[in-house]
Amino acid sequence: MYFRQLFDHQSFTYTYLCADVGSKEAIIIDPVLEKVERDLALISELGFQLKYIFDTHVHADHVTGAGHLRSQTKAKSVVSQIAQVECVDIAAQEGDVFHFGPYGLKVISTPGHTDGCLSYVVSGDDINTYAFTGDTLLIRGCGRTDFQGGNSAQLFTSIRDKLFQLPDDTILCPGHDYRGHTRSSIGEEKRLNPRVGMHQSLETFQDIMANLNLADPKMMDVAVPANLGCGLKH
Amino acid sequence: MYFRQLFDHQSFTYTYLCADVGSKEAIIIDPVLEKVERDLALISELGFQLKYIFDTHVHADHVTGAGHLRSQTKAKSVVSQIAQVECVDIAAQEGDVFHFGPYGLKVISTPGHTDGCLSYVVSGDDINTYAFTGDTLLIRGCGRTDFQGGNSAQLFTSIRDKLFQLPDDTILCPGHDYRGHTRSSIGEEKRLNPRVGMHQSLETFQDIMANLNLADPKMMDVAVPANLGCGLKH
Repeated sequence: MYFRQLFDHQSFTYTYLCADVGSKEAIIIDPVLEKVERDLALISELGFQLKYIFDTHVHADHVTGAGHLRSQTKAKSVVSQIAQVECVDIAAQEGDVFHFGPYGLKVISTPGHTDGCLSYVVSGDDINTYAFTGDTLLIRGCGRTDFQGGNSAQLFTSIRDKLFQLPDDTILCPGHDYRGHTRSSIGEEKRLNPRVGMHQSLETFQDIMANLNLADPKMMDVAVPANLGCGLKH
Repeated sequence: MYFRQLFDHQSFTYTYLCADVGSKEAIIIDPVLEKVERDLALISELGFQLKYIFDTHVHADHVTGAGHLRSQTKAKSVVSQIAQVECVDIAAQEGDVFHFGPYGLKVISTPGHTDGCLSYVVSGDDINTYAFTGDTLLIRGCGRTDFQGGNSAQLFTSIRDKLFQLPDDTILCPGHDYRGHTRSSIGEEKRLNPRVGMHQSLETFQDIMANLNLADPKMMDVAVPANLGCGLKH
């Protein structure tokens, strides 16, 4: 499988491109509006056909590139049915599976950062399993839970009862990192995540999350409505 | 092999940590001074012992973390003998091989961006080959050749006659990227690198490099002398 992690320096967002080199079918996860031309150039020069565009959730810190990517390819856009993004092609839910070449992408519902957060698990016979967790599980951290239907108890359950049930060697591909880390593994986070690692209780986690005292994302007032319109109106 | 790419958002520098999970022996390539605490934390929490610290060259855009990492570990620092960095532990040259666990790191002399540029090729029985190319070969680009002993004809030869002789599926790990790309492969760059891909002639390459009209790096006056002192005096 062709796999590339791409970074947006403005919003610290990671976008992921996965493709089957044989059939040329490709998917992209969490594209950023300002990087659509970069991503289209990469897809084009590699001769890939974009089949699906996945957003892990309705982002509050950047505008999705989904709408523009879709308009310039034949790809279908996918987001959680709970997010109620009417312009999306496919409203996904837990258990849905999407295919590109011989690879499968399975949808896991992981609410808590927002109520419509999905994680995507890509697997196949000849590759490591990849978990694309958006803002649910970050490297040594997790998404905030203080807006957009966020709920710390729900986030704890999503991570511990779903993501941490994946094999330890699953490659963790988060939606952001602010310290320059690029990837981790499920095993590493179970052991070392200071908020939600296996040593932490729900009570401690809720206490941590209730006392982060974070400012709202700078782009929130723009990004959320724009993302509810697939990034086409902003 | 444990492999992590790390990013410095200030200088757009990629640092690489590789380790043998069995013996815990680890190496780091192109550490950044301001990120030494992050890198030490990662090494410590994973229980690794840092054995070698490699710099691909005397950087003009950031200060190396080599000196500080060495002072807080038992690792030996390595840089090209041509760079004449007197405080370094090992002055390396073409053909030298360093070992960590069952993995080997082979030194290739790739002058052109600076006259002392080295590339490092890591290989082993159970892994893909990785090429850490510093500023010699970048994703769809290459390092500039207009200072520090830079020479575009030499850079062309280093890339075409050395790096492009590696297997096409060699993972290319550059020292920087300014557009959010994180890795490539030797095969991809042979085909798609606009400056030095297989379709380009030496003459065209020299013409491109002579007309980049780039400003000096902001940190050049600080970084070069600091790096000649292993990042300890700055």
